[in-house]
Amino acid sequence: MDERGSYFNEGIGKDGPFDRLREECGVFGVFGYADAASLTYYGLHTLQHRGEESSGICTSDGRAFSYHRGMGLVKEVFDKDRLESLLGDRAIGHVRYSTSGDSRLTNAQPLVFKTRDGDLSVATNGNIVNAPAIRRELEQKGSIFQTTSDTEVIAHLIARSEADLVTAAKEALRQLAGGFAFLIMTNDRLLVASDPHGLRPLAMGRIGDAYVFSSESCALDAVGAEFIRAIEPGELLVFDEMGYRSERFAPVERRALCAMEFIYFARPDSQMHDINLHTARKRMGKQLAQESFVEADIVSGVPDSSISAAIGYAEATGIPYEMGMIKSKYSGRTFIQPSQELREQGVKMKLSAVRSVVEGKRVVLIDDSIVRGTTSRRIVKMLRDAGALEVHLRIASPPFKHPCFYGIDTPDSNDLIASSHSVEEICGLIGADSLAFLSHEGTVEAIGGAFAKEKKGGLCMACFDHDYPTELAAAAKTSGCGC
Amino acid sequence: MDERGSYFNEGIGKDGPFDRLREECGVFGVFGYADAASLTYYGLHTLQHRGEESSGICTSDGRAFSYHRGMGLVKEVFDKDRLESLLGDRAIGHVRYSTSGDSRLTNAQPLVFKTRDGDLSVATNGNIVNAPAIRRELEQKGSIFQTTSDTEVIAHLIARSEADLVTAAKEALRQLAGGFAFLIMTNDRLLVASDPHGLRPLAMGRIGDAYVFSSESCALDAVGAEFIRAIEPGELLVFDEMGYRSERFAPVERRALCAMEFIYFARPDSQMHDINLHTARKRMGKQLAQESFVEADIVSGVPDSSISAAIGYAEATGIPYEMGMIKSKYSGRTFIQPSQELREQGVKMKLSAVRSVVEGKRVVLIDDSIVRGTTSRRIVKMLRDAGALEVHLRIASPPFKHPCFYGIDTPDSNDLIASSHSVEEICGLIGADSLAFLSHEGTVEAIGGAFAKEKKGGLCMACFDHDYPTELAAAAKTSGCGC
Amino acid sequence: MDERGSYFNEGIGKDGPFDRLREECGVFGVFGYADAASLTYYGLHTLQHRGEESSGICTSDGRAFSYHRGMGLVKEVFDKDRLESLLGDRAIGHVRYSTSGDSRLTNAQPLVFKTRDGDLSVATNGNIVNAPAIRRELEQKGSIFQTTSDTEVIAHLIARSEADLVTAAKEALRQLAGGFAFLIMTNDRLLVASDPHGLRPLAMGRIGDAYVFSSESCALDAVGAEFIRAIEPGELLVFDEMGYRSERFAPVERRALCAMEFIYFARPDSQMHDINLHTARKRMGKQLAQESFVEADIVSGVPDSSISAAIGYAEATGIPYEMGMIKSKYSGRTFIQPSQELREQGVKMKLSAVRSVVEGKRVVLIDDSIVRGTTSRRIVKMLRDAGALEVHLRIASPPFKHPCFYGIDTPDSNDLIASSHSVEEICGLIGADSLAFLSHEGTVEAIGGAFAKEKKGGLCMACFDHDYPTELAAAAKTSGCGC
Amino acid sequence: MDERGSYFNEGIGKDGPFDRLREECGVFGVFGYADAASLTYYGLHTLQHRGEESSGICTSDGRAFSYHRGMGLVKEVFDKDRLESLLGDRAIGHVRYSTSGDSRLTNAQPLVFKTRDGDLSVATNGNIVNAPAIRRELEQKGSIFQTTSDTEVIAHLIARSEADLVTAAKEALRQLAGGFAFLIMTNDRLLVASDPHGLRPLAMGRIGDAYVFSSESCALDAVGAEFIRAIEPGELLVFDEMGYRSERFAPVERRALCAMEFIYFARPDSQMHDINLHTARKRMGKQLAQESFVEADIVSGVPDSSISAAIGYAEATGIPYEMGMIKSKYSGRTFIQPSQELREQGVKMKLSAVRSVVEGKRVVLIDDSIVRGTTSRRIVKMLRDAGALEVHLRIASPPFKHPCFYGIDTPDSNDLIASSHSVEEICGLIGADSLAFLSHEGTVEAIGGAFAKEKKGGLCMACFDHDYPTELAAAAKTSGCGC
Repeated sequence: MDERGSYFNEGIGKDGPFDRLREECGVFGVFGYADAASLTYYGLHTLQHRGEESSGICTSDGRAFSYHRGMGLVKEVFDKDRLESLLGDRAIGHVRYSTSGDSRLTNAQPLVFKTRDGDLSVATNGNIVNAPAIRRELEQKGSIFQTTSDTEVIAHLIARSEADLVTAAKEALRQLAGGFAFLIMTNDRLLVASDPHGLRPLAMGRIGDAYVFSSESCALDAVGAEFIRAIEPGELLVFDEMGYRSERFAPVERRALCAMEFIYFARPDSQMHDINLHTARKRMGKQLAQESFVEADIVSGVPDSSISAAIGYAEATGIPYEMGMIKSKYSGRTFIQPSQELREQGVKMKLSAVRSVVEGKRVVLIDDSIVRGTTSRRIVKMLRDAGALEVHLRIASPPFKHPCFYGIDTPDSNDLIASSHSVEEICGLIGADSLAFLSHEGTVEAIGGAFAKEKKGGLCMACFDHDYPTELAAAAKTSGCGC
Repeated sequence: MDERGSYFNEGIGKDGPFDRLREECGVFGVFGYADAASLTYYGLHTLQHRGEESSGICTSDGRAFSYHRGMGLVKEVFDKDRLESLLGDRAIGHVRYSTSGDSRLTNAQPLVFKTRDGDLSVATNGNIVNAPAIRRELEQKGSIFQTTSDTEVIAHLIARSEADLVTAAKEALRQLAGGFAFLIMTNDRLLVASDPHGLRPLAMGRIGDAYVFSSESCALDAVGAEFIRAIEPGELLVFDEMGYRSERFAPVERRALCAMEFIYFARPDSQMHDINLHTARKRMGKQLAQESFVEADIVSGVPDSSISAAIGYAEATGIPYEMGMIKSKYSGRTFIQPSQELREQGVKMKLSAVRSVVEGKRVVLIDDSIVRGTTSRRIVKMLRDAGALEVHLRIASPPFKHPCFYGIDTPDSNDLIASSHSVEEICGLIGADSLAFLSHEGTVEAIGGAFAKEKKGGLCMACFDHDYPTELAAAAKTSGCGC
Repeated sequence: MDERGSYFNEGIGKDGPFDRLREECGVFGVFGYADAASLTYYGLHTLQHRGEESSGICTSDGRAFSYHRGMGLVKEVFDKDRLESLLGDRAIGHVRYSTSGDSRLTNAQPLVFKTRDGDLSVATNGNIVNAPAIRRELEQKGSIFQTTSDTEVIAHLIARSEADLVTAAKEALRQLAGGFAFLIMTNDRLLVASDPHGLRPLAMGRIGDAYVFSSESCALDAVGAEFIRAIEPGELLVFDEMGYRSERFAPVERRALCAMEFIYFARPDSQMHDINLHTARKRMGKQLAQESFVEADIVSGVPDSSISAAIGYAEATGIPYEMGMIKSKYSGRTFIQPSQELREQGVKMKLSAVRSVVEGKRVVLIDDSIVRGTTSRRIVKMLRDAGALEVHLRIASPPFKHPCFYGIDTPDSNDLIASSHSVEEICGLIGADSLAFLSHEGTVEAIGGAFAKEKKGGLCMACFDHDYPTELAAAAKTSGCGC
Repeated sequence: MDERGSYFNEGIGKDGPFDRLREECGVFGVFGYADAASLTYYGLHTLQHRGEESSGICTSDGRAFSYHRGMGLVKEVFDKDRLESLLGDRAIGHVRYSTSGDSRLTNAQPLVFKTRDGDLSVATNGNIVNAPAIRRELEQKGSIFQTTSDTEVIAHLIARSEADLVTAAKEALRQLAGGFAFLIMTNDRLLVASDPHGLRPLAMGRIGDAYVFSSESCALDAVGAEFIRAIEPGELLVFDEMGYRSERFAPVERRALCAMEFIYFARPDSQMHDINLHTARKRMGKQLAQESFVEADIVSGVPDSSISAAIGYAEATGIPYEMGMIKSKYSGRTFIQPSQELREQGVKMKLSAVRSVVEGKRVVLIDDSIVRGTTSRRIVKMLRDAGALEVHLRIASPPFKHPCFYGIDTPDSNDLIASSHSVEEICGLIGADSLAFLSHEGTVEAIGGAFAKEKKGGLCMACFDHDYPTELAAAAKTSGCGC
C-alpha cells in the first residue's frame, strides 16, 4: 500500500473514506551553518514525503527571526527571493500533512511567538495525548491560542514559567504525554527533544562545525551532513554559541520507536539508528517468503513503498521479480480527477496494472499493510482485469488493528478491516486467491538492529497488538497528528 | 498632494524617503445580514483607498468563525470560492496599509484568537499610544504575542479578565490611550467602539434589519445601507440577536476628529457627521481663494485628492479650471518602475503635466498638503518643463509641522519641511513663483458642520498646532499606525 | 457615459447586452532607441484605456525578433524578466480590446510571421472593411491563416508579392478599404501607415535621434518624447538606419478623423493634431450650455469621460460644478460581481451617486453619448434614489444613430436608441426631466482646430449622420474592430 | 542514465552542456468518444515523460475546433474550466520537450490553421529531415510561417494542393523524409500516419466504438482502451463518421523502429508491437550479465530507467539487487538549484547514493547508456564517496556514437564520448573499476519480439552503427526534434 500520493489522486470519492495512513509531518533544524535557510530548504524537500500540505522555515541570526510559511510543497512555498530573505545561521523547518481548509495556514509550522524573553519558534512531529486538557487549563488562566495545533501548548507552558528557558522547557516537556520530536528555537539557543519513549524518530548530524537535525537521516545525506546518532528517549539537547549540553527531562522508559516508520513511512534510503530502511524491508520480504511461500510465476510489489519487500520475496523464493504495477510520477494536487463515468470505464491515473506483464500469470503481490481494505480490493481487481490468473497477496507487516495516538492519522478501530475480520475473511473481501501477513516476531526480527533484544525490539507495535507505551488520556483525540 | 497611489509608483528611490502620508486602515462590519461576507467584501472594496497592503474578513454564523486574510487588494485576496466559504450573518473586515515585509501577513487583520470563552476577532483603525507599555506588562505575566499589532493588546486584556465580555471590554478600552475605532466580534456579539476623543471616524448604517459599520460612509452607500450616525467618542455599542445597547466606557472628553480625514484621506463622496467631503474641500478651495488670490490663466489641482479644492478656487476667482495634470489609473504594485535613466529622460508613469494645457500659461496649482516638499518640487518642475510660465502653489490646509500619533504614518518632525522652514523658504526650495497655505481658522471654517462651534470645530489639528488631545506616553512610537 | 471600465463591472447581465462603445486598440512603436522594449512598455501602459484585453511587444535588434504577448493589462503581461528579454532598438506594441475567449491569445498583437524575406511583425488599430473578401481570395490560393484578425491579411498580401517590401506594402495597403493605422516591422525597417481618410489617429514624436509612434500623443509625453505631427491620410513612412522617407500609397481623399476620439475615447491629456482633448471637451460643454441651458443647482459629469464637458458647462452657466457621481478606481476584471439580489438591494461597485451632494438638488448631468440608453436610465435612477429633485441630462455630442465600421464596436442600428426614437421619446425612456444633445455644427465648432474649415471639420461623423467616408463592402462585418 | 528529469535539476551549469538525450514529444488522439478532451488529458498525462515543456489539446465537435495550449505539464496547462471548454468527440493532443524560450508557446502543438477548406490541426512526434528545404520553397511562393516547427510544413503542403484532403495529405507525406508520427484533424476527419520506416512509435487502440491513438501503449491502458496494433510504416489511416480506411502513401521500406525507445525512452509498462518494455529491459540486463559478469556484493540500477535491467542482471547472476541509488520524486522545474558552494559541500537534490547500502560493498551499477560521460563520472564518484569499495559500470546498450536525426536531441558527434574513445578510455575517464557495454547482437536479441528476424530486428540502430535508414539531406539540422 502506498497511499501517500494517492491521497490526492485515487482516494477521493472512490469508496467513501480514504484508505490510507496519513503522514505525520517532518522537522529539520540547523545550528551554526552560514546559510541555514538554504540547508533547511533542501532538508525539508527531502522530507517532503512526510507532509505535502504546508511547509515553513524560521531562521535566526542571533538577534531576530525571519520566517515564511505557506500551503503547498516546499518548492511551491519558497522561491529564491523568499529564501534569501531568511537570514541567519540557525533555522528550524517543518513539512506538514493535514486535513485541508484554507484557514489552516495559521496552523502551518514552525509556529512563532513573542514572549517576554523574546521570540520563540517551535516545530513538532507527533501528537501530545494530553494537549486538550493542558490547553483548557491554560485558557482558564487567560491564555489566547492562535492555532488548533498541539504545538502551541508547549510555547504557552514555557512563556508562563518564571524559570529560565531550559528549566521552563524541561518542566513543560515533563507535563506532556504522547509521542513527539520537538525543535524549539530562540534567538540564542536551539532546543531539541524527543518524547520519553522515543516514539517519533529524530536524527542528529554534523556538517563542519554545524549541527543538523532531521526526522529522517535521508535529509542529512541530502545536505552533505554526516549522521551522528538518534536523539535519545527523554533527552533534551540545548545548543548555543559555545556548544551543546545534553540533559534528560524524563527518566528512561521502555524504548518504543514507531514500527510503521520501518514498514511504510520513512524513505528507503533513510537509516533509523543503525538500520537502513530498504534493507530492513527486503528482510521483511524474505521473512514473508519463509513464512508464507506460494507457487507463482512472478512477484510484484505495490509501488513505491513495497518494492523493497517484493525484491526480498523474489530473492528468497527464486520467483522472478516483475513490474506488474506502475505508478505515475506526475500526479499531484492540481491534477483533475477522472469523473465517475471515466473511472468506471477504466481510466486510471495513479496506480495501474501492466497487462503485458501480468496477463496469464500467477502473481504474488507484496504490499506493506492493509488499512480499510478498499485499496487492496481495487488492486486485486486491477490485476485480474489485466489478465492475472491468480493473485496472492502477501503483507509485509502484521494485521493493522488499533488506531495510533502518536502522530499517525488512522481510521477508527471499526474501520480497520483487521480489527473485526479474520485473515480468511479479509482474503474473501478483497478477492485475493490467498492472503498472508508477516508475523509479529517475523517483523521484529526482520527490522533487527541494535535494539533487537530490547522488549519488542525497541519498537512500538501498538497498532498491531494494542500495547500502547503511554497511558491514553480519557479525553485524548481518538487518533491523528497534533501538528 | 495625492501620494497614496504614488507609494508604489513615483516615490521609490526618487528623492530618498517617501514624501507622503500613509493611510491608516479601514474597518467594516455587519450584524444580521444573511450574506455578511459579500456585504463586507463590497464595503472593504469601497474603503480600499485606506489600505492597499492586506485585507481580511472574519465571519460568524453564531456558532463558529470562518476567516480569510491575505496580502493585496480586496479583489486580489478574495475570489468567489473563498468568499462563499465565509459563512454567517455577521462579519468584520479590514484593509491595511503598512510597511512591507512578507511575514506581515501575520499582522493582517481581523486578528482571530481562541480564548476560554470561545473565539474572538478584532479589527482596528488607529493607533494606541500606550500599547508598548501594556504589552510589556502582559508579557511579564506570560502572555504570548503572535503579531506586532497594537490590536492584539486588547484581545489579551479581555482574555485575562475574569469579568463578562462587555465588562472586560470596557475595562480594557479604558486602559488604552490614543485614537482608535474597534470592531470586536465573538460568536454571539459584535462590539463597536470609538476612542474618547473620536479621533478616528466610524459610521453606523442600517440595511433592513441589519446594522453596518464603516470607517467612512461611502462604503455604507456602496452596499445600499442608510447612514444613521457616527459612533460617539468613548461609546461602546454591543449588538446581539435581541438588538443593541449603547454604553460609555469613558467620560466625554473634547471631541477631536482627525482634520486630515477632511483634507486628504477620506473619499470625496463620504460624509463625516453631516459634512460631505467634496463639498468641504470645495469650500477650502474657495476660502483659499479669498485668503490668497493670485492673477493667473488657469487653475489646476493635483489629482485626485485636490481636484475638489481646485474647482472651488476656480469658482471663487473666475479663473478657468483646467486639467493641467493627469494621473494614470492603471499604475499599481505590479508595475515595473522606470530605470533612473528613463526617469531622467522624462518617462513618467503616474502623474504628468499636460503640455497642451499649461504651455504658455500662468498656473495656480492647488494641492492638499506639503509633507517633505520633494513631491511639490517635482510637480512644480513638471509644470515648468511642460511650458508653464508661472506656477503659484496654493495649499488647502495649514503647514504640516508635527507627527501624528493617532494612526497616520508621518515622517519625523525634522523631515517635515514646514517644521523648520518659513513659507517663504519653502517656496524657494520647491521653486514655485508663490506659495500660500490655508489658515487654521479658514480650515476650521471651511470644514464647518455640526461641531463648528466646539473647540477647533471638534477637530484634531495637532499636526498643524501641536495641541495633541491625549497625553503622549514617553515610550510612544514616534508615529504611525498601530494596526 | 464612460462605459470603458464598466465593461467588466456594471454591464454584465444587467440589462442584457452591454450598453457601451468598445475601444478600438492602441499601437505604439519605436525606431532607434536603445531600450526600445521599455519605452514601448511605458507607452502601451499610457494607451491602456484603448484596450485592456491583451497586450504585446515585438522588438528587433536588426537581426532577430524577440516578442511576448499575453492576455491582460500591460503590467500583468510583462514582468521585469520578460521585458529584459526583448532586445533591440526598435519595437512595435499593441493593446487590444475585444470580446473574450481564451483562444484569443492567438489574436493578440503584434502578429509575427516568417516569410521568405525574413521576419515580419504587424500591429494595427482599426478595421478593414473588405478584409473578409481579401481573405477568401488568399485562402483560395492556399494561404493558411493563424488568426481571425484583419491584420493578418496585410502580411499575406506582402508575403505573396514578388516586389520589394515597400512596393509590396504600398500595393497591399491600396487594396484595403476602411479605417486603420499600421505599424509594420522587419529586421531592418519600420513602416508606418494611415488609411486614406486618416480615420484612426496616429502621432509621431521624437526623442533624441529616435522616432516614436503612438495612437495618442499622451504616450509620447509619458515617455518624454516631443510631439512632431500626425501621420497624414494615405501616407506611408519608411524608417531605416539611414533615416526615413515619406510616400503616399493612395491619393488624398477627404480627411475624416473619428469624432468619437474627441468626444469619448482619447485621454484628456492627448492632443489630436493641434487640439488638446480636455480643452475641446470643455468647449463642447460650453457650447452645450449655450444651446440648451437649464436652471439648476449643480452641474455634474459622468466620470471619468464627461468631467471636462461638465466643467465647461458649469463655467459657461455659473451653476456650480459638484461631484454628484463617483467612480471606483479599484474595480477591474478580477472583481467579483454582486449577485442579482445584492444589486437590487443597492450594492453598486463602479459608479455611484453621492447622496450628500445631490440630495434636494436640481442636477444637470453631463454625459458624452447615449448608446442603447440603458446606462443613462440607470444613472438617472441612481441620482433620483440619492435624492436629486430634478435630473436634466445634457449630452455633449449629437444622437448616436449608426454603427461604426472603422474600428469601434457598436451595437446594430436597431439597438441604438437614437436611431429609432426622438429626443423626446428618449427622455421619457430614460426618465430624465429634460434631455438635450449637442448639435452637429456645435460639435464641429467645439472641436475646432486646424481643419475646422475642411468639410465637417475634417471629421468622420458617420455615426451621427450616416455619411461614411469609404464605400462599405456588401460583406463587411456589421461593425467592430478588426484587430 | 535517467537524465530526463535531471534536465531541470542536476544538469544545469554543472559540467557545461547537459549530458542527456532529450525526449521527442508524444501525441495522443481520439475519434468518436463523447468527452474526447478528457480522454486526451489523461492520455497526455500518461505520456508526460515524453515532453514536459508544453502541452495542448485541440478538439472538434464536427463543426468547429476548440483548443488550448500552454507551457508546462498537462496538469498545469489544463484546469477543469479549460478542459470543459474543449468540446466534441474527436481530439488530438501533444506533449513537447524542447529548448526553452518563452516565445516558444507559439511552437506548442497541436498547431491550428485556417485554410480554404476549413480548420486544420496537426500534432507530430519526430523530425523531418528535409523540412528546411521544403520550407524555403514554400516561402518563395509567398507562404507565411508562424512557427519554427517542422509540423507547419505539412499544413502548407496540404493547403496549397488543389486535390481533396486525403490525396493532398498523401502527396504531402510523400515529400517528407525522416522519422515521424502524424495526427491531422479537420472537422470531419482524422488522419493518422507513420513514416515509411516506422521510426517513431504510434499505437492504435479501441474503447467501445471509439478509436484512440498514442505514441505509447501505456496511455491506451490508462484510459481503459484496448491495444489493437501499431500503425504500419508508410500507412495513412483516415477516420470519418462512417469508419476508417487504411492506405499507403509510400512503398514498404525496411522497418526501423527506434531502438532507444526500448532502451530508455518509453515507459516500462508500454508495449511496442508485442514487446513489454520492462520485460525487454530485464532481458537486456540478463544478456549483459552473460556478456560481462563481474564478482560483486550488490547490483544497483540508476533510477528510474535502469531499474529493470538491474533486476535482470541480479536475477541472472544471483548477486542481490539493492537500492544503492535513489531519486527524489519531488524535484522539478520550480525547484531552487543549490548554489555551487552547496553543491561542492555535498548537497544533492535529485539523485543520490545510499550510504547505508553501498558502504563497504563492491557494486555493479547498471545504466542504460552513456552520452557525454559527465553524468556517469558523477555517479561513480557519488558511490565512492558513499563508501563503495568497487564500482563496476554495466551499460545495457551499445556505445552511443552517432547523432539522431529522427526526433531525439543528441549532442554533436564530437561530444559523444563513445565516438572518440575506446571502452577502456571511457572507463578511465569516468573513474569506474570496470566498464562494459551490451553488444549489438545482444541488444537486438534481448529486445526480441515479432520482428526479431527482420534486418537488425526491425530496429533503427543508427546511433550505434551509423546505418541511417533514410538519406540525410545535406541541409538537415544536425540533430533534434522537429516538433
